[in-house]
Amino acid sequence: MTASPSLVLDGLRAQATDLDARDPLAGYLEEFVPAPGVTAYLDGNSLGRPLRSTADHLSRFVADDWGTRLIRSWDEGWMDTPTVLGDRIARIALGAAAGQTVVADSTTVMLYKLLHAAVTAMPGRDEIVVERANFPTDRFIAESVAAQTGATVRWVETDPIAGVRLTDIDATVSERTAVVVLSHVDYRSAALADMAGITAAVHRHGALMLWDLCHSAGAVPMQLDAWDVDLAVGCGYKYLNGGPGSPAFAYVRAELHDRLRQPIQGWMGAADVFAMKEGYTAARGIRQFISGTPPVLAMVPLSDMLDLVERASIDAIRRKSVSLTGLVVDAYDRLLAPRGVRLLSPADPAQRGGHVSFGHESFREVTRLLWRQGVIPDFRFPDGIRVGLSPLSTSHREALEGVIAIHAAMDAQDAA
Amino acid sequence: MTASPSLVLDGLRAQATDLDARDPLAGYLEEFVPAPGVTAYLDGNSLGRPLRSTADHLSRFVADDWGTRLIRSWDEGWMDTPTVLGDRIARIALGAAAGQTVVADSTTVMLYKLLHAAVTAMPGRDEIVVERANFPTDRFIAESVAAQTGATVRWVETDPIAGVRLTDIDATVSERTAVVVLSHVDYRSAALADMAGITAAVHRHGALMLWDLCHSAGAVPMQLDAWDVDLAVGCGYKYLNGGPGSPAFAYVRAELHDRLRQPIQGWMGAADVFAMKEGYTAARGIRQFISGTPPVLAMVPLSDMLDLVERASIDAIRRKSVSLTGLVVDAYDRLLAPRGVRLLSPADPAQRGGHVSFGHESFREVTRLLWRQGVIPDFRFPDGIRVGLSPLSTSHREALEGVIAIHAAMDAQDAA
Repeated sequence: MTASPSLVLDGLRAQATDLDARDPLAGYLEEFVPAPGVTAYLDGNSLGRPLRSTADHLSRFVADDWGTRLIRSWDEGWMDTPTVLGDRIARIALGAAAGQTVVADSTTVMLYKLLHAAVTAMPGRDEIVVERANFPTDRFIAESVAAQTGATVRWVETDPIAGVRLTDIDATVSERTAVVVLSHVDYRSAALADMAGITAAVHRHGALMLWDLCHSAGAVPMQLDAWDVDLAVGCGYKYLNGGPGSPAFAYVRAELHDRLRQPIQGWMGAADVFAMKEGYTAARGIRQFISGTPPVLAMVPLSDMLDLVERASIDAIRRKSVSLTGLVVDAYDRLLAPRGVRLLSPADPAQRGGHVSFGHESFREVTRLLWRQGVIPDFRFPDGIRVGLSPLSTSHREALEGVIAIHAAMDAQDAA
Repeated sequence: MTASPSLVLDGLRAQATDLDARDPLAGYLEEFVPAPGVTAYLDGNSLGRPLRSTADHLSRFVADDWGTRLIRSWDEGWMDTPTVLGDRIARIALGAAAGQTVVADSTTVMLYKLLHAAVTAMPGRDEIVVERANFPTDRFIAESVAAQTGATVRWVETDPIAGVRLTDIDATVSERTAVVVLSHVDYRSAALADMAGITAAVHRHGALMLWDLCHSAGAVPMQLDAWDVDLAVGCGYKYLNGGPGSPAFAYVRAELHDRLRQPIQGWMGAADVFAMKEGYTAARGIRQFISGTPPVLAMVPLSDMLDLVERASIDAIRRKSVSLTGLVVDAYDRLLAPRGVRLLSPADPAQRGGHVSFGHESFREVTRLLWRQGVIPDFRFPDGIRVGLSPLSTSHREALEGVIAIHAAMDAQDAA
């Protein structure tokens, strides 16, 4: 005998309320700008919500740093913003020592720069290994760089739910591989890759490893230094809440700084920025990976969110993330699985990042219904709903109401 | 018999006051954030001042567009921001029809993308022609692209004050030239290049023409379409007051859209952004020159300043610019020339952009003194002072007080 629908809902709601009551990070929910009319925001892994403090911070920035200090601000700190903010991301979210991370450009441009630099630094090796299911930008950039450097893209086929496994790497990477590009957390399934194990395997084949951290930075702890990662890029506007189109970040392991040369040589990456002399000499260290003028204004929200992540701690954020995705999978089991919805994410929380994906043929229309009600997940072509659960800005109850709303929208669809 | 120093100053001040009284754009001065302690801001061509309205606009953006509409904003307008804002820059400042201008990346990255695309589109031509005195980024990027495409950089030697002339081009450009890169207004001397004449000369040799508009966009009118310009890049944070590190813009003549392919192929430049399918197909039109996610937050101040430029009109802005630089050169003649300061800009206002440069061996120390007093020009290695006169935010009196302060600082230096 199965429980009646309303009993199931009551039970899940009691569970969510209890989890919220015991959530040590619950207080952080108040730090975010309220969104009237939004019942459940389940897309913080696509665009993180702004902090209440950010509007004030931007106003102060405009009035003081920009409006009053004017050009003097470049001498008074702005020049160092790419590395200062980079070092903070490294320490707070990446498990990396200072001097290896920089904030600049977009993820796409940074990926291009690092990948181009990596391939060029590996003469005699002519393959870039990329997961065929990776995010389009990663694939497109790999193809761009391959075409421009005479390399070839070699695709890794992976399980759509479990993601990339060590065996996939050992079957693909060889003495021809210059560099391997993988996502730490898969943008669709949320599959969490074994960063340490895969990096070690890639190194056994003598290749460089570049991790895309877009869907993990700020949600999943990592140890870039301890795990010997060579290169990484990540996004500022997902779990780091930097705002639409915020600058990206890039990590380059210190030992590679003298060996890699990035392709977009601009004045801000030069050894002496204001010398205005002939010929480019790259800056020492991580600064050489900057090209144009640092996007200082656009770094303000990112900097605010890093304060929050630091206070909460990335390990506590991960614990809440596991709790949130766990509740959503529980609710799926009770409400959605019985009606034929597929779970497109790993069932084991240790194997997944901060979001959960579901599939059903009705989901394009269901997403439309949900958005109209202020329940906002992400639709993923052709029939996926991605439930993103940004730990500091999402309550268990909000996450649960999202799943319940999917359930109700399917009912409404069936009745229509 | 020469006038006494105080009579000279009185005369110049009366002249400046009179010019301000008759300035039809004087009312715009009130639109900018006041800078307590700053007597004369003479660096608006390096970092334009923020508008009073921008802090409010950013707050509304954070609370509403980002904080409340959240991810829905991408469907509600954000996706089109690069071309909508690009079209506005084109119409208001560039003399260009819609569909050819995009806002994205930094000037450095955009320059790289367009130059790489141009060289690649000209098989059989293996030279990039660049002015040896061009801004470092332009030279460095030309060298980067040359190294990556097998081309050679061919340098144009030009007069340090008069800048690039038609004869320089005809002596350098040949059937080997793929593309010519020049600045419309020289970043040091302010020499204004003959954009129409030079572009036509480059075309006679069958090459493409790429203009760097960093020191002209928003201050000097131009007709990119009528003058058959192929490619252009420009800066958002100088005369367009977009804030530190604001996004850049790029213009690509419509007829070239099908012929050029830029090197940094990311999801946002693809024909179908959300299809997530295999292989990159470039978007039609100017969108293909986008790479990563549009920097929407960072476009807010730029958008505000465009409103102002449109209201004032670029032709009226140029008239005021000529008046401001004219007054500064008058004051130079009376106060600085007699003490051996060199004029490093063209004396004819028709030949110069919106700033004026001076040279004197004392100027490193003089600049230090000036900055301490809240008089803020730009120091240019080894001994130049660049007086930038952003027309909408600078009064004649402010410009004049800057020159008087240079004069007084030289006195103080002599007395020390």
